[in-house]
Amino acid sequence: MLLPKDPPGTGDEAVLPTLVDTCQAQGIDPLAEKIDALRGWVEDDLADIDKALRDALAEGASPMEESARHLVALGGKRLRPLCVALASRCGAGFSREARDLAVAAELVHSATLLHDDVVDVGDRRRGAPTARVLYGNAASVYAGDWLLVHALRRIRRAGFEDLLGRALDVLDAMLVAEGLQLAWRGTLGRGVEGYFQVVEGKTASLFRWALYAGGRAGGLSPARCDALEAFGHDLGVAFQLLDDVLDLAGDPGAVGKSLFTDLREGKLTFPLLLALERDPHLGPLCLEASRGPSVDPQVAQRVTRSLRDTGALRDAHARAEALTLRGVSRLGALPEGQARSTLEGVALAMLHRRK
Amino acid sequence: MLLPKDPPGTGDEAVLPTLVDTCQAQGIDPLAEKIDALRGWVEDDLADIDKALRDALAEGASPMEESARHLVALGGKRLRPLCVALASRCGAGFSREARDLAVAAELVHSATLLHDDVVDVGDRRRGAPTARVLYGNAASVYAGDWLLVHALRRIRRAGFEDLLGRALDVLDAMLVAEGLQLAWRGTLGRGVEGYFQVVEGKTASLFRWALYAGGRAGGLSPARCDALEAFGHDLGVAFQLLDDVLDLAGDPGAVGKSLFTDLREGKLTFPLLLALERDPHLGPLCLEASRGPSVDPQVAQRVTRSLRDTGALRDAHARAEALTLRGVSRLGALPEGQARSTLEGVALAMLHRRK
Repeated sequence: MLLPKDPPGTGDEAVLPTLVDTCQAQGIDPLAEKIDALRGWVEDDLADIDKALRDALAEGASPMEESARHLVALGGKRLRPLCVALASRCGAGFSREARDLAVAAELVHSATLLHDDVVDVGDRRRGAPTARVLYGNAASVYAGDWLLVHALRRIRRAGFEDLLGRALDVLDAMLVAEGLQLAWRGTLGRGVEGYFQVVEGKTASLFRWALYAGGRAGGLSPARCDALEAFGHDLGVAFQLLDDVLDLAGDPGAVGKSLFTDLREGKLTFPLLLALERDPHLGPLCLEASRGPSVDPQVAQRVTRSLRDTGALRDAHARAEALTLRGVSRLGALPEGQARSTLEGVALAMLHRRK
Repeated sequence: MLLPKDPPGTGDEAVLPTLVDTCQAQGIDPLAEKIDALRGWVEDDLADIDKALRDALAEGASPMEESARHLVALGGKRLRPLCVALASRCGAGFSREARDLAVAAELVHSATLLHDDVVDVGDRRRGAPTARVLYGNAASVYAGDWLLVHALRRIRRAGFEDLLGRALDVLDAMLVAEGLQLAWRGTLGRGVEGYFQVVEGKTASLFRWALYAGGRAGGLSPARCDALEAFGHDLGVAFQLLDDVLDLAGDPGAVGKSLFTDLREGKLTFPLLLALERDPHLGPLCLEASRGPSVDPQVAQRVTRSLRDTGALRDAHARAEALTLRGVSRLGALPEGQARSTLEGVALAMLHRRK
C-alpha cells in the first residue's frame, strides 16, 4: 500500500486515510466506504507527487535545504496536490504537467508554513520540532524563499503560461492577507467582513489555483476550469472555517491558549467573531486576556461557554457545511466519474474531520 | 535637477553623483567630467524608475507594505536599475518594458535586503533604522516575499518570456549562495573558490540579469545580450570585491567589528581570504576572536596590519580592477555611443568609490 494509514512519524495527517477513519468513527459508513473505494484510485498519483516533492529538494546540504526537506518530509495532509490531481483526472488525466503543478501547490503551501513559523515563533508542527527550532530562523526564511522559487519554476516548466501569472496573483493575495493580520495584531480585527477578506487571500486563493491548474492540465474547457476554481474557493473557505471550529471546540485550557495566541498574532477566528457579535461583554474580556502573560482559566472557561451558548460554534460549522454544499453543486459542470465523485467525497468528509 | 547631490535623508547614495564626487576628490578629473557629462543623460530614466518604484508600492497600509516602502524610499545606489536602463539604451532605447525590468531588478535587490536584515538582525541601513526595527521582523519577512512577487509580476508584464525563467534561476542562485553562507557560519568557509561561488550567486547573478534584460528590452542581438551579461558578471564580482576592500580598509576598530560580525554570519571577504593564505597564524586568531562577546582591540590591530602587510588589500583591489577591465573590454561587442560610454565610465569610476 502506497499510503499507509499510520506510517511512523510521517504522513499520519494524509487526508484520505484520515477521512475514512473519521467517517467510520462517526458511523457515517457510506461516506467512509465511498472514500475508501476511491482512495486506491488516487494513491498512485499521491505517491508519485510525494516522490517528485522529495526529488525536487534532494540537492544541497546547507541548513536552508535541510529546513525545506525537514518540513516537506513530515508529510501533512497533501490536500492541495490532491486537488490538482483530482481536477486533472476530471479531464484527460494525471500527466507530468499535472504532477509539476501539484508539486508546486504543495511547495507554495510549505513556503508559507516556513515563514509563518518564523513570524509566529512556532516550535512544533506536524508532531515534530519546526525547522526553525532545528536549523534556525535564518535557514527557515531562506528556505521559504527557496521553495517559492522552486514552485514558480515548476509552474513555468509545466508550460501553461496563464498559470504562472495566476500563481503570482495568488501569492500577492496571500501576502496582502498576512499584512492585514499583522495590522490587526492585538485587536479584534474588522469583523466578519475582514475575516473573509483574510481567509480568501490566505487560504482559499491557493485552493482555487490548485483546482483551476489541475483542470487546465487535464485539458478541460474554460467553463469547467472556472467551475473547478469556484469549487476550490468554497472548499478553501470551508476548510478554514472548520479549522477554526476545531481550534475552539476543545477543552477550555486548549481553547484559551489557542484563542489568545491567535489574538496576539492578529488572527481572528470565525466562531469567536460570531460570539463577539452576540455577547457584548466578550470583546473587552478577550482583548484584556490576550495582553496578559498567561491565560486566566476563568476567562478561558467564560469564552468557551460563550462560544457554545451563543451558538457560535454550531453556526460556524453550519456555514462551512453550506459552503461545502455550494462547492459540490458547482461540480455539476464537470463530467460525471470517479474523479468528480472523489472531489465531492473529500469535500463532504472534510466536514467530519477532527484534526 | 532630478538627482540632487545631497537630498536630505534619501538618495545620498545614488551612484552617479557619488562617483563624480569621488573622482573629483581623487583628482581624476577626466573621469569625473565624463560621468558628469553623461549623467544628465540618464537622469530622466532614473527619475522615471524611481517614480515607478514608488507607484508600484503605493497601495496598502499594513506593516508589510510600510516596511517595503520604508526601505525603497531610502534610496540606495540604484545601480541595478541603472544597468538595465543603460543596457536598453545600447539598443533601441529606454521603453516602458525596460522600465518595468529596471523596477524589477531593484525590487529583487530590496527583497533580499529585507530578509538579510531579519537574518542578520541588522539595525541600520542607508543611514536609517531598518524596517524590522520600525515594523518588526514579521513585517520584513512578508515584505521581502511581497517585493519578490511584485518583481516577478513586473518581469512577466514586460513580456519577454525568457527573462522570467532567467530571473527564477537568479533567485535560486542567490538563495543557494545564502545557504552556503549559513552552512559556513563561524568557520573560515571554503577558501577563495568558495568565496567566488557565493559572490557569483549572491551578487553577480542579479547584475548579469539586469544587463541582459536591458539588452533584450533594447532589442539587441543574442550575441550583444550575451556580451552585456558577461560585463554584468565582471561588474558584479568587482563590485563585491570593492565592498570587501572598503569594509576592511578602515581603522582597526571598525575593521574588527565588521570582520568578526561577518565571520559569525559565515561571510568571508576576499582580502581576509588572501591574508589567511599568506599569514598562517591569522586563521585560529580570527576564529577565536569571532566567538567572543566583543572584539579585542589588539586582535583587531593584528588583523588590520596583516591585511596591509601581506598585500591582501592591495591585491584584492587589483583583482577588482582586472575584472573591471575585462568587463569593459567585453562591451566592445556593443555599438559605440553614449550608453556604452556611461557603462564603461560607471564601471571604471566604481574602482575609486569610497562607500
